[in-house]
Amino acid sequence: MTKARRILILGEGLSHDPQYGKTMRGIIRYGPDPVVAILDSARAGEMQDGIPVVETVNDSLCFDPTVAVVGVATQGGRFPPAWRELLKSCIAKGLDVESGLHEYISEDPELIELAQRHGVELRDLRKPPAGLNVPTGANLEVEAKIVLTVGSDCAIGKKTVAVELDLEARRRGLESVFVPTGQTGIAIAGWGIAVDAVVSDFLAGAAEQLVVEGARRGGKLLLVEGQGSLVHPMYSGVTLGLIHGSAPHAFVLCHRAGSTEIEGCPGHPIPPLVELVELHERISLPRRPAKVACIALNTADFQRDDDARREIAEVAAETGLPADDPVRFGAGYLLDALLARV
Amino acid sequence: MTKARRILILGEGLSHDPQYGKTMRGIIRYGPDPVVAILDSARAGEMQDGIPVVETVNDSLCFDPTVAVVGVATQGGRFPPAWRELLKSCIAKGLDVESGLHEYISEDPELIELAQRHGVELRDLRKPPAGLNVPTGANLEVEAKIVLTVGSDCAIGKKTVAVELDLEARRRGLESVFVPTGQTGIAIAGWGIAVDAVVSDFLAGAAEQLVVEGARRGGKLLLVEGQGSLVHPMYSGVTLGLIHGSAPHAFVLCHRAGSTEIEGCPGHPIPPLVELVELHERISLPRRPAKVACIALNTADFQRDDDARREIAEVAAETGLPADDPVRFGAGYLLDALLARV
Repeated sequence: MTKARRILILGEGLSHDPQYGKTMRGIIRYGPDPVVAILDSARAGEMQDGIPVVETVNDSLCFDPTVAVVGVATQGGRFPPAWRELLKSCIAKGLDVESGLHEYISEDPELIELAQRHGVELRDLRKPPAGLNVPTGANLEVEAKIVLTVGSDCAIGKKTVAVELDLEARRRGLESVFVPTGQTGIAIAGWGIAVDAVVSDFLAGAAEQLVVEGARRGGKLLLVEGQGSLVHPMYSGVTLGLIHGSAPHAFVLCHRAGSTEIEGCPGHPIPPLVELVELHERISLPRRPAKVACIALNTADFQRDDDARREIAEVAAETGLPADDPVRFGAGYLLDALLARV
Repeated sequence: MTKARRILILGEGLSHDPQYGKTMRGIIRYGPDPVVAILDSARAGEMQDGIPVVETVNDSLCFDPTVAVVGVATQGGRFPPAWRELLKSCIAKGLDVESGLHEYISEDPELIELAQRHGVELRDLRKPPAGLNVPTGANLEVEAKIVLTVGSDCAIGKKTVAVELDLEARRRGLESVFVPTGQTGIAIAGWGIAVDAVVSDFLAGAAEQLVVEGARRGGKLLLVEGQGSLVHPMYSGVTLGLIHGSAPHAFVLCHRAGSTEIEGCPGHPIPPLVELVELHERISLPRRPAKVACIALNTADFQRDDDARREIAEVAAETGLPADDPVRFGAGYLLDALLARV
């Protein structure tokens, strides 16, 4: 019997960052195993969500972690050089290491040698399975209603919305399955494929495999984690491959209230939501035309609930669609809207 | 000094296929080195474009080939099992082997061992370079007019149209460069990245690198080879990543006259051309909105020139855009249309 998993999250330099720290927050909020400490030297001594922030791997050992999880998503998925020392330190202290970056720790000769010496495992959550291929058409034969979260930008809550809708559906006794398509989703659910790490030609094929697997796991309602955005200048290809490969019956469009520009891409505007709704509906497969069923608005930037509610009402009026913030106000209203449309 | 390249094209079972034999035809028509034989056992004894078709590697040796090039693109880029024997036979006869499939011959232990024994090279045209990443914004700073060929389906002539426009532009003394994005384009031009073989997250970054490189090679007009189609249920992700990463100033929309369904995907319709024009223009980067400058119509299915001309006139009337078949009638008219719009 293996020791119960106790997680040290590696967030060095980025644990406070809303975009790059999203893996950490996903694991803390939705993961099945306890997070016992967060490593971020600049914030050492603070608490986050009731979890102590520590300076070094050594400082974390009193909380008895068994595994260190890379909790930040760097741009392009590469390790900043200082991270190598951090990973070596974790291995030397006997911790398994899990990473969702594109640079695979399980293929790094120095880390492999060190891991063998200390008897720990290196796992790459983003490493695609062997044998992927193009779609076969099985996506259109899955006997489940498929819902994909899409969005106006990266890191605005597409995964969180899918998880919240799935939790709410299961609370109601529905046979719902959350379908993970990225490293954090995989860390939360324990299965999945990081579609952005797949060879481009097999992107839609990987998405197809995921919805087939979601149905095999008993899902009659599949809540598929979206990736990127159709209007993102870096990641739009991933988004469209996922849209066509997962073949959703409906979209949930996610948006950060008030955003008008792609984060990190100055001069790249986010089009009005009405245009985004139409663009997604037009680009859905003619064999399975999908509508945007509702808008999930991320109102985290608004402190007062009243302001959040006003933003939501404005978006609902602007788009003519049901809108809510499912993290702030619960996922019930959006799930009702969704179930009425699939 | 190495021996001049003389090519044996491996087309076993597919050399006659309009879709899967497109690599072969591209190399025969536009490649700088002579093709001395085509291997396809079922068609042995025939001639194609003045080139003898042979049954076995042995039969090709009287034509003194130096390199065997895999001339067919199998679905998903895998080798059918019978191909392994064929490749081993080429190596055993002292031929280098080049392949554009996703299954890398240069990483296959059995083939590597055999190649070392016989002193030949194994090259994978589709293997991406190391160190790819997301786009940096350099695509928007390239000092060249960028034109991307897009299309209603795969294998309808996007590469050929880009090559023909480039040849015509250079004939006129323009500083034009053809930018290859797939295995055949790479085989023709001797450089490039097969964007469909790149990790999905780095798709747009690879496309950016290609236009930067095209300008570095002296291009003031870049004719970028398109891939897939926005409406293709298997490959649309590659298409959109290439559109956003190459950041074209204008599109040339390619279409096979009369096609109404995606080849090989029964039930997946091709939308009307007017809708395709609008979809491409809407999905182009807001930072660099691009128009469809003209339509390149593939009229190969029409035997009589009169019928081809009638099809072209109908498409021009339907879309309100200049249209022509640049392979059948020359690329001059479409190049004029393009230059008037970039």
